[in-house]
Amino acid sequence: MNDPESRDTPIERLGKFGLIDRLCAGAGKINPGTVKGPGDDACIIDTGNSLTLVSSDLLMEGIHFNLVYTPVKHLGYKAVIRGISDIFAMNGRPGQILVSLGISSRFSVEQIDSLYEGIYLACKRYNIDLAGGDTSSSLTGLTIGITSIGTVDRESITARDGAGPNDLVCVTGDLGAAYMGLQVLEREGRLFGMDKSFKPDLTGYEYIIERQLKPEFPVDVLEQLREKEILPTSMIDISDGLASDILHICKSSGTGCRLYYEKIPIDTETFNTAEEFGIDPVVAALNGGDDYELLFTSPPANYSRIMELKDVRIIGHLTAPEQGNMLISPEGTAVELKAQGWNKL
Amino acid sequence: MNDPESRDTPIERLGKFGLIDRLCAGAGKINPGTVKGPGDDACIIDTGNSLTLVSSDLLMEGIHFNLVYTPVKHLGYKAVIRGISDIFAMNGRPGQILVSLGISSRFSVEQIDSLYEGIYLACKRYNIDLAGGDTSSSLTGLTIGITSIGTVDRESITARDGAGPNDLVCVTGDLGAAYMGLQVLEREGRLFGMDKSFKPDLTGYEYIIERQLKPEFPVDVLEQLREKEILPTSMIDISDGLASDILHICKSSGTGCRLYYEKIPIDTETFNTAEEFGIDPVVAALNGGDDYELLFTSPPANYSRIMELKDVRIIGHLTAPEQGNMLISPEGTAVELKAQGWNKL
Repeated sequence: MNDPESRDTPIERLGKFGLIDRLCAGAGKINPGTVKGPGDDACIIDTGNSLTLVSSDLLMEGIHFNLVYTPVKHLGYKAVIRGISDIFAMNGRPGQILVSLGISSRFSVEQIDSLYEGIYLACKRYNIDLAGGDTSSSLTGLTIGITSIGTVDRESITARDGAGPNDLVCVTGDLGAAYMGLQVLEREGRLFGMDKSFKPDLTGYEYIIERQLKPEFPVDVLEQLREKEILPTSMIDISDGLASDILHICKSSGTGCRLYYEKIPIDTETFNTAEEFGIDPVVAALNGGDDYELLFTSPPANYSRIMELKDVRIIGHLTAPEQGNMLISPEGTAVELKAQGWNKL
Repeated sequence: MNDPESRDTPIERLGKFGLIDRLCAGAGKINPGTVKGPGDDACIIDTGNSLTLVSSDLLMEGIHFNLVYTPVKHLGYKAVIRGISDIFAMNGRPGQILVSLGISSRFSVEQIDSLYEGIYLACKRYNIDLAGGDTSSSLTGLTIGITSIGTVDRESITARDGAGPNDLVCVTGDLGAAYMGLQVLEREGRLFGMDKSFKPDLTGYEYIIERQLKPEFPVDVLEQLREKEILPTSMIDISDGLASDILHICKSSGTGCRLYYEKIPIDTETFNTAEEFGIDPVVAALNGGDDYELLFTSPPANYSRIMELKDVRIIGHLTAPEQGNMLISPEGTAVELKAQGWNKL
């Protein structure tokens, strides 16, 4: 019999990515079809003509979402975006998702119907087939597992490990909005918790709340890249936060980076709300996560073509690894970029 | 703001498969590669030369496993078996799995290492690559999401919907053992819970406990079928219980069935333990689940070749749908076969 009270090393000590590295250290390649295993947005399977991409995500109640202020329909929509963004980030075309649910007795059929309404809405918007899954009961809360499947041409794939020093670092859209939307929702949720007659007023926060509750993926940028025949040397979706995600690219590609504080795109509403909460807006953009924007790299020779892309900004460049991963302040001071902790992920 | 206390239809009223049917009613086929969506062991994706199979499973602490008596290493092993059995059941060859974990602060790095030891052990035994996944924290307990990927030749696939009336119903190995093993473990766990100095004595229960904690999949039967060139008209892995799983085949194939009480294979240890617990051994075999055996159908013309298969028993046959789904007692009485409830799944 196991003693559930026995404890050794707390997982916080390793952090999410330390834990993943440790767990995947033994992962080999037994099957010739396994082109790439752990360590990117999706695994890559050689299926003859094209490559198949598969990724999986878990969304846990109380960690990834709070049902006090998240409509379940929006949650379903967002779960799909979270899943397929991994396929898009490898320059793939997502085609199918599988949805697995763990549902506690607190939930009704109608609530699960609403969740699926959101799932189907996102599937329709992004041309995805819901292709299977599993449901089971759960002791507490709601757990959503999303498996995303896509395909990509052999020569079009964008992994995390193809970037080199001097490559430009580009991001789509703006960052930190979803995080600031979350701060507003949590504040209003607390007030509602204290007084059920409280009517939250979300005027002036519409954009950031939409970004938190119902994000979209910048598929148009992928189309522009294709039209302009720019194949990024590396690409990742910004789900854990810009800092964490650029560090993934640097680690996989064996480079350092220099990002410029003033270049990081932040919407006015994000900026104002961050000020209101006493948060540095750039910190929200670096560590907030949940942005579902794209982060990609491209050689400096593509500078003028990248400048023509709509909704894309160059925020820095990669360097030799020994120069470290740096954020450059408006005054020119370099501060080391660090990823966030375990509990946030 | 949502009121978490509002309740409409309880999910028990629909049951697991009622819920799945309802949720998948809107699932279409947008992508030409989506050969088959929900409703079988895995979804089928046309990737050119062969078909790709993908399935996903969630294992939730307190529902699918109890860590008081389940060594985490065994849990990892079993999670892989549960995942890949869906691929095997479609006559596919599993090649990769993705593992997603939700981990509460109760767990240490060493415990998660043990879980992965079991995962890697099963991967090695069944020639599977661990190809990715995700980890996150969880508020309570451990959640394991397993995505399994495999391939199958277009002409070799065995779905649930190809069977016809008069087809023989065959099962591998023996049934109900894992369920009876669980009863013993739960009894000993309760005694341990009351008195921590209690030393469980599992002598005489070795086989059924092994079947519960560390199941294997009958890959040798799949090889025999291939050698003898028997392509089942339908096939499914017995994970929810024989009753539930034969009903899936009957529903998908549009048939009824007649299973014979006395033909259902039950090991002596399962039989004796069931008697000890005052449980009908056949009920344990019908509804226990967690067997990871194969249930398949084949036309009566193959009778003699099936009789030559090792570890396979014919337990009945399919009928026209209007004859219903029947279990025939030793006295010849027909009782309607029913699947188990939501809470057990």
